[in-house]
Amino acid sequence: MPDKMLRMTRSEATGRAARPVMLAIAGDSAAGKTTLTKGLVEALGEDRCTSICVDDYHAFDREERKTKPFTPLHPDCNHLDIMEQHLQLLALGRPILKPVYDHATGTFTRPAYVEPREFVIIEGLHPLATKLARACFDVTVFLDPPEEIRHQWKIDRDCAKRGYTPAQVVADLERREPESAAYIRPQRRYADIVARFAPIATRNDPPGTPLSAELMLRPTIQHPSLSTILTDDHRTAMHLKIIRDADGTPTDCLHVHGHASTEEARQLEKAIWAELEVEGGPPDSLGRITDDRRSEPLAITQLILLYHLLQARQDEQ
Amino acid sequence: MPDKMLRMTRSEATGRAARPVMLAIAGDSAAGKTTLTKGLVEALGEDRCTSICVDDYHAFDREERKTKPFTPLHPDCNHLDIMEQHLQLLALGRPILKPVYDHATGTFTRPAYVEPREFVIIEGLHPLATKLARACFDVTVFLDPPEEIRHQWKIDRDCAKRGYTPAQVVADLERREPESAAYIRPQRRYADIVARFAPIATRNDPPGTPLSAELMLRPTIQHPSLSTILTDDHRTAMHLKIIRDADGTPTDCLHVHGHASTEEARQLEKAIWAELEVEGGPPDSLGRITDDRRSEPLAITQLILLYHLLQARQDEQ
Repeated sequence: MPDKMLRMTRSEATGRAARPVMLAIAGDSAAGKTTLTKGLVEALGEDRCTSICVDDYHAFDREERKTKPFTPLHPDCNHLDIMEQHLQLLALGRPILKPVYDHATGTFTRPAYVEPREFVIIEGLHPLATKLARACFDVTVFLDPPEEIRHQWKIDRDCAKRGYTPAQVVADLERREPESAAYIRPQRRYADIVARFAPIATRNDPPGTPLSAELMLRPTIQHPSLSTILTDDHRTAMHLKIIRDADGTPTDCLHVHGHASTEEARQLEKAIWAELEVEGGPPDSLGRITDDRRSEPLAITQLILLYHLLQARQDEQ
Repeated sequence: MPDKMLRMTRSEATGRAARPVMLAIAGDSAAGKTTLTKGLVEALGEDRCTSICVDDYHAFDREERKTKPFTPLHPDCNHLDIMEQHLQLLALGRPILKPVYDHATGTFTRPAYVEPREFVIIEGLHPLATKLARACFDVTVFLDPPEEIRHQWKIDRDCAKRGYTPAQVVADLERREPESAAYIRPQRRYADIVARFAPIATRNDPPGTPLSAELMLRPTIQHPSLSTILTDDHRTAMHLKIIRDADGTPTDCLHVHGHASTEEARQLEKAIWAELEVEGGPPDSLGRITDDRRSEPLAITQLILLYHLLQARQDEQ
């Protein structure tokens, strides 16, 4: 009998699609993953992007979870093995049949056939949870807002879109906290970029000032050379300094203050864009929070991610 | 940037489950696939078997199909690429999240998490449709009953279990015929064993006589050496002869007549079992059609499959 493994491998070796560029955006519930993703998809063009939320790999529906001792944050509450499998398939340019969890009803509906386009953006609670999952990505991001801000975001969203009351969301956050600490926040250390959006405690900016961004740019990937553009003068609206990460390794830390002027931000954006050697200028969609609200710190965060995605695309070709 | 393919492969290389033995049972709608499978699962033990129907990989639900120019038999009506993917994963000992199509409502429901056990039996319309799918199997079977018998089986089943009227089933069969010819029957030539259950035209057996089995045993796998046990005398209830297949290649053809006595059948069963060097005797569950109907031709067909499954298991170990 011919070896079936050999036959499988050989039958498979012909005519495969190009490998897409894979970006992970990990973070706790309501950390801002979708807002970050949306601007990127718009900048790259929907026809070139596939964006997926991997929270649909829940192992139990809402009813079944009531009898379980854990929240959806627990690895045992999710088919992480299937998530790994699907990440691998997408990274190889192959389609998946993705489960679909309906947040409105708390049940699983018809799975969706998903083919990877040029850029695949994977957001969710656990995309960096395992070694194999992490190996599928070209660029990894962890969103790390201060907890009090994230809690407010979650209350706002879950009440507006998922039919909960504020008291229910607060109770849920409390119940989830030990598992956030055990399973979500540890993914921070595997991210190439850690992004924190927050007000600056020492300033008294007027209401409506966008949150500032603090971006940890780890030397695990090659970032645009910002040190030739920015100084470490912390009195300026945008500055870059070397710090020690929690594990002692050196890393760059970029601050973009919420009060940075559009003009200052544009200068930085142009400098980053110039390194890419791509025609045109940075897309206008970057930094959009809602139709009439824009944030320069968000725009620059998205632009740095865009830089990495386009750079990785060039490397693949 | 380290090559992500290399990292994926390396991260994956550790601690994988043993590879299961894979059996395909292909055939048209109501060809007897489930009956054949059931006896094998019972003989091997449910705790050692995973059996899956790959007709759940439909790309459209019943409502959507109404607007399509083809029936579920058409490859374009199915996610055969996802079926291939899942067959590969199972063959490698990995779990899948299998789509679930509800025949009663004609809609897709919650997918099922399926882990392969020692023996994986895949039945359906298309398991041998592509080269990659075929490469996943150790043993392949095609069920090839005469069309008039299959039509009656389909009318009986679809009216009893799927809520159709006989006229609806007949209309459906007519509509499906061109696609049966184009996409289902061509799989016959890829099967290691082609099984045809039918009455013998030249005999006038009393009602209730089980159907005879005509088993084409192709030399693509190593069958038990029946030629030392049986002769080619076609007057006996069980005989074996060499014939030319439709493509001109020589193949063995085993006939087991429906009027074969239990005693004759048992002798053949014992001889096949003896070649396996497995303790005990052939399982009693073989040949059961319903709780009170038994068929020796079915028992021997199942036993030959059981032989191949156990043999392949020994080869893997």
